[in-house]
Amino acid sequence: MPVQPRTPPGTLELLPPQQIAFQRMLDTIRRGFERFGFLPVETPVFELTDVLLTKSGGETEKQVYFVQSTGALEAGKPPEMALRFDLTVPLARYVAQHEAQLAFPFRRYQIQRVYRGERAQKGRYREFYQCDIDVIGKDTLSLAFDAELLAVIHGVFGELAAFGLGAATIKINNRRLLRGLLAGAGVASEQHGAVLHEVDRLGKMERAEVAQRIAAIPTLDAAIATRVLEALALPLDRLDELGIANEDFTRGLAELREVHETALALGVPAAGLAIDLSIARGLDYYTGTVYETFLDGQPGLGSICSGGRYDDLAGLYTKSKLPGVGISIGITRLLSYLLDGPAFAQVASTAAVIMLAVDARYRTQTLALARDLRAAGVPTETYWDGDKLGKQLKYADRAKIPLALLLGEREHAAGVIKIKDLRDGAEPREHDVPFAELVGAVQRLLA
Amino acid sequence: MPVQPRTPPGTLELLPPQQIAFQRMLDTIRRGFERFGFLPVETPVFELTDVLLTKSGGETEKQVYFVQSTGALEAGKPPEMALRFDLTVPLARYVAQHEAQLAFPFRRYQIQRVYRGERAQKGRYREFYQCDIDVIGKDTLSLAFDAELLAVIHGVFGELAAFGLGAATIKINNRRLLRGLLAGAGVASEQHGAVLHEVDRLGKMERAEVAQRIAAIPTLDAAIATRVLEALALPLDRLDELGIANEDFTRGLAELREVHETALALGVPAAGLAIDLSIARGLDYYTGTVYETFLDGQPGLGSICSGGRYDDLAGLYTKSKLPGVGISIGITRLLSYLLDGPAFAQVASTAAVIMLAVDARYRTQTLALARDLRAAGVPTETYWDGDKLGKQLKYADRAKIPLALLLGEREHAAGVIKIKDLRDGAEPREHDVPFAELVGAVQRLLA
Repeated sequence: MPVQPRTPPGTLELLPPQQIAFQRMLDTIRRGFERFGFLPVETPVFELTDVLLTKSGGETEKQVYFVQSTGALEAGKPPEMALRFDLTVPLARYVAQHEAQLAFPFRRYQIQRVYRGERAQKGRYREFYQCDIDVIGKDTLSLAFDAELLAVIHGVFGELAAFGLGAATIKINNRRLLRGLLAGAGVASEQHGAVLHEVDRLGKMERAEVAQRIAAIPTLDAAIATRVLEALALPLDRLDELGIANEDFTRGLAELREVHETALALGVPAAGLAIDLSIARGLDYYTGTVYETFLDGQPGLGSICSGGRYDDLAGLYTKSKLPGVGISIGITRLLSYLLDGPAFAQVASTAAVIMLAVDARYRTQTLALARDLRAAGVPTETYWDGDKLGKQLKYADRAKIPLALLLGEREHAAGVIKIKDLRDGAEPREHDVPFAELVGAVQRLLA
Repeated sequence: MPVQPRTPPGTLELLPPQQIAFQRMLDTIRRGFERFGFLPVETPVFELTDVLLTKSGGETEKQVYFVQSTGALEAGKPPEMALRFDLTVPLARYVAQHEAQLAFPFRRYQIQRVYRGERAQKGRYREFYQCDIDVIGKDTLSLAFDAELLAVIHGVFGELAAFGLGAATIKINNRRLLRGLLAGAGVASEQHGAVLHEVDRLGKMERAEVAQRIAAIPTLDAAIATRVLEALALPLDRLDELGIANEDFTRGLAELREVHETALALGVPAAGLAIDLSIARGLDYYTGTVYETFLDGQPGLGSICSGGRYDDLAGLYTKSKLPGVGISIGITRLLSYLLDGPAFAQVASTAAVIMLAVDARYRTQTLALARDLRAAGVPTETYWDGDKLGKQLKYADRAKIPLALLLGEREHAAGVIKIKDLRDGAEPREHDVPFAELVGAVQRLLA
């Protein structure tokens, strides 16, 4: 009785054509990151539990996957290791561990899978890719990096649009400004976290309901809730009307303006970049700039790329003060949305050419031609079995290989190779090409 | 008291310049695989335990890492999942699971990390990369694929040589021929496995000692051991002298000759390919062709790329008969050997150019030039803080960025940008280039 072959729930496994398209997306992102001089980092999939898990133990840590070797499991020992649940904690550990060998500001990117013990449901993955960039400073970090990340992300999504995503808009805000606004509206600082948590629901929940929830927070009331929500709806150049003068407000507003202006100077078009005071990013971790990104055609997908500025990356591991700013692309969620789209349906094989097996007498010649093609950078597959031509062409078509080449008795006598263009479907165009001109002809057809 | 930042024992974590070089090695391997039309596959890092672990439970399975969510751990349940310990079992599961959607013969490559609970010691990793290619047939699979893998591997190692590996030699043999030889020497088939296990020690152990160990196998003796080792030392064209006529011998010999000849026709040079009858690959899993690969300059490193032909990939998961042939590059071991070598020391940053921050008045112009460079495919970093020029140049040098560009008052007045070539060391050459000619000048300097 065979074991039923299956993957664990909450994992996404692709067929080869989808994997090819996904790999191109990852390559596009990597190129986009490297174009701005970001440096690659990879960390082990597991970390020691005392390194990975803090004493406080947030929501995410409750969903961690522990790792135990056979021996440790049999001995009944508590797990020494756990799978990473994001790329931020490994980055903090990495920077603290290798601090003396890194050049600061340290621009790093990391594209790896992370693991969360989520309850299995549609669109929720237990294993998924994250594509992170962060810049880490020592003691200080120029606000210009907050704008540079916008240019990087704008560039990446500009190229990813071709995969069927369409245009994206990056929304920015500033947590310091939000705190200044809340203080000005009469919210005590102990309540800022609770209010911002509710503000995060704007867009997913009716405004009136959010107002009620804010009013229900201890020490707050409906009048304060109204003031807060009205303030958040104002455009930046009318915030002065609120008459708020605290330092958080003044500095946060100046930061937000500078980030926006620098981003425009870096070439991010105004149409793809929106200041939105209702973007709060619930995490207290963020202290300044915050980002969220939405597909113009699919706002319901939620933010597909989020992040922000934080005061101190690695306080758990080092006494050095390491401020940073970072952003993360949730590529697995994007992928699950794209899988059934047209861009993924059109993907060809890795092979651009297949050498069919027509006549064993000319095999040496076809192999030599295949070598020429490969040497010229054309991925070339060889059909080895002496199957009927129909079966061979069916294989090539199913494998989505664009060009099939054949050398039979007639072609051999004429000193040519026949190229069948399988992209034409049922009636492929044919080209007879002299041996010496094959590479050029194939390259022209593929161009 | 901060937690000491550290990685688990048996993991390899790289600094960015090493990671850049390693990424180039992985890209080289991927390109080499795709050049022959191999298709990418990625599988989840964990598999369900009943899928991953067979009842027999070989040596490798004793070293497995089990995975448990927080909830399952607290409930005291046995682990439902385990980390993959190779890429072969996931391939078998993948092919069986997706059989109806794959085109056969199925050429797949997979480059991912695998996990083994090894005792920690130098050169042994608990997490390491494998780069595997396999071709899976349905019912049958042409012997030509055994030769094609040799061409793929030869191509990959030809390109990897540039990273400091030097030349490599692939050794091939045939397990069927070995069984025929053993039968001809008087070894009963039940003892073949034990004898081949000892034969595998040739090269690592004195011949006389291997002979003693073979003679000590039950039912064997010194005369048989001598006959076996003498036969294995013969060149292929003298095997006839042994007067062996069993079918395994005849067929195995014919297969080995054909694989060798086809590989030569595929362009593998005779110098890089050696028939070696003492290559046995202990695993009973292999039934025909077997491969091992050694660096000519570092034989002591052992085989860095091994594999072979097997009769049935996925008997555990499907009733279909799926013969295959595959080979695996142990890239993490190669990497650990290369890390201190010259190729890795010379690696530059991902950024080819850094825009220094000299005069805030010209920032908009430097940002526009950076955009032009990026648009032309030149990875360009921006220095943001207004630090002294010396500090900026020190950063650029430490980050190994080849070219530093600066636009100060003097350059601005002259309508030029100054390029400093930091590859020159303490006294960088300088070039003043008009704005409009910058991209071309940078590309020429980098070429």
